[in-house]
Amino acid sequence: MVTSHDVARLAGVSQPTVSRALRDSPNVSAETKERVRRAARSLGYVVSESGRALASGRTRRVGLLVTDLENQFYPYVIAAMHRQLEALDHQLILHTEDRDGEDVTERLFSHGLDGVLLATTTSDSALPVRLRDRGVPFVYFNRTSAVEADSATVDAAAGLGEVAEALAHRGHRRVAAIFGPRNTSTGEEREEALREALEHHGIGLPRALTHRGPFDVETGHAGMRRFLALPQCPTAVVCSNDVVAIGAVNAAHEAGLAIPEQVSVVGFDDLPPARWPVFALTTVAYDLTAMAQAAARLLIERIEAGDRAGSYRHEVFPTRLVHRRTLAAAPAR
Amino acid sequence: MVTSHDVARLAGVSQPTVSRALRDSPNVSAETKERVRRAARSLGYVVSESGRALASGRTRRVGLLVTDLENQFYPYVIAAMHRQLEALDHQLILHTEDRDGEDVTERLFSHGLDGVLLATTTSDSALPVRLRDRGVPFVYFNRTSAVEADSATVDAAAGLGEVAEALAHRGHRRVAAIFGPRNTSTGEEREEALREALEHHGIGLPRALTHRGPFDVETGHAGMRRFLALPQCPTAVVCSNDVVAIGAVNAAHEAGLAIPEQVSVVGFDDLPPARWPVFALTTVAYDLTAMAQAAARLLIERIEAGDRAGSYRHEVFPTRLVHRRTLAAAPAR
Repeated sequence: MVTSHDVARLAGVSQPTVSRALRDSPNVSAETKERVRRAARSLGYVVSESGRALASGRTRRVGLLVTDLENQFYPYVIAAMHRQLEALDHQLILHTEDRDGEDVTERLFSHGLDGVLLATTTSDSALPVRLRDRGVPFVYFNRTSAVEADSATVDAAAGLGEVAEALAHRGHRRVAAIFGPRNTSTGEEREEALREALEHHGIGLPRALTHRGPFDVETGHAGMRRFLALPQCPTAVVCSNDVVAIGAVNAAHEAGLAIPEQVSVVGFDDLPPARWPVFALTTVAYDLTAMAQAAARLLIERIEAGDRAGSYRHEVFPTRLVHRRTLAAAPAR
Repeated sequence: MVTSHDVARLAGVSQPTVSRALRDSPNVSAETKERVRRAARSLGYVVSESGRALASGRTRRVGLLVTDLENQFYPYVIAAMHRQLEALDHQLILHTEDRDGEDVTERLFSHGLDGVLLATTTSDSALPVRLRDRGVPFVYFNRTSAVEADSATVDAAAGLGEVAEALAHRGHRRVAAIFGPRNTSTGEEREEALREALEHHGIGLPRALTHRGPFDVETGHAGMRRFLALPQCPTAVVCSNDVVAIGAVNAAHEAGLAIPEQVSVVGFDDLPPARWPVFALTTVAYDLTAMAQAAARLLIERIEAGDRAGSYRHEVFPTRLVHRRTLAAAPAR
């Protein structure tokens, strides 16, 4: 079998340089990398990752844990994290949560990951505790729980404050909201921030005008249908995120209701589909790509710091309201 | 450090049984698995995947190679492949192609994968040749190239035949098409099948009524805009896939053109967004989930067969036209 020593000999460099070059380390010149790669190629040398992992105790693989891979929110997150991790010479491994939390923990551990990105943790999940107890580095993305760890999240209050103001200024008094699950920090924070901001403008959110469910298209669809069946329909619906808002727009479309002439709809996230002309969704925006990259970077830095790891870092991304077509003046009722 | 021997002693089974149980092998009873897991948990035992890989020569990791993770086509594919691979006790690692094909090959090899799922191979890609030469098992998903390998693809001709017939019967004579790239088997096959089927009904596809580009929203948008700028606009636009069709619908929407009253639009794939009421896209459907699972299964079977590997297997999924709202009678011009 060809070894890295054979490659080193052919390339005229030391064996550690071969490892570094093939790992694309920034400490090796582009020229040397090219020479090493050419030598490796001509000898048909394949890096034994397993050997590397045993030697360093690191696999250079991190897991991303999500509940629902089909959710339209994730492609953008996964793409950004993948790019960032690749730049830092790590691989991204996808994991989905089953109903059985225990199962995930075992799977995460048995797969020899250096760390985990938690994208859909519920506040009552036992996973962060287990990860902490086993000393597995992890970072919260978008959501957090009571267990302290590095995090990349959004400052929902600023954007939702703008939403409340925009609604009030356009004469909306009968406003409805579709909230995320109560056992998610994202769901709870956005609900609290929206209630407070609307209250500031004297707008209440009675029970009949709120709906709650997972951050998916079905929740938005079901919520909007419920509101449309009320004796008095709300003039605006604020959604927990863009995917939910797409469901709400679908339901309005199905019912033949014009947006924004008859009902305004507001989202959160500013995903690329929010910009599609068929939606032209007014939504709370932040830099999702930068946030996904920050989570990946925080995790790798935490892993590399090892025992020298310092205090926890929380990167909070600012939000702002982006005006498109779906928010207009309240119709006279 | 706790070893699998400690777990074996506590659980009262042999060490190989511990390995098999923790790998969720079908050859171990559910009861024994539970006993081994409990023992492993109580000892805080973590399987060393690197050790396992060195012992078996297998990593139980397979790569999925795509060009563009943000493309709306992939969440559904990735979710289905991930579920299937998890059921077969393998992990899915995402890889994206750079412009530099050489680079991908090196990365794939250096990461110690047992095999690769190729989802976006171009017909002129050197990658299949390199994989074959190095003896790395791979399976084509959706697309193929000249190098023989197992594959899971669709029978585009059947569905596109139905499209041509539906168009002809609804009086469409001036039909436009947005094709995929010529250097993809999918692009070429769909183009050929559509041209032939339309010709059968006496409908030609002149150069001015065709547009070509990657399978993304931007291509659909640009194609439709070009058609709308023609002195005589087509009455129907057939798109290379649903993502492209969404782009075309967006452009029509932007231009204030009513679908299907002024122009019909047809997609391909029947992705979940095609069913959203705002689109209600008439499209060519097949079982995308089953196809993604088939590709994953074919790859694992190929890996496990090793040197006993037999002839190549091609699973071809049937297609059919699903009628929704975007295809109607040609407007009188």
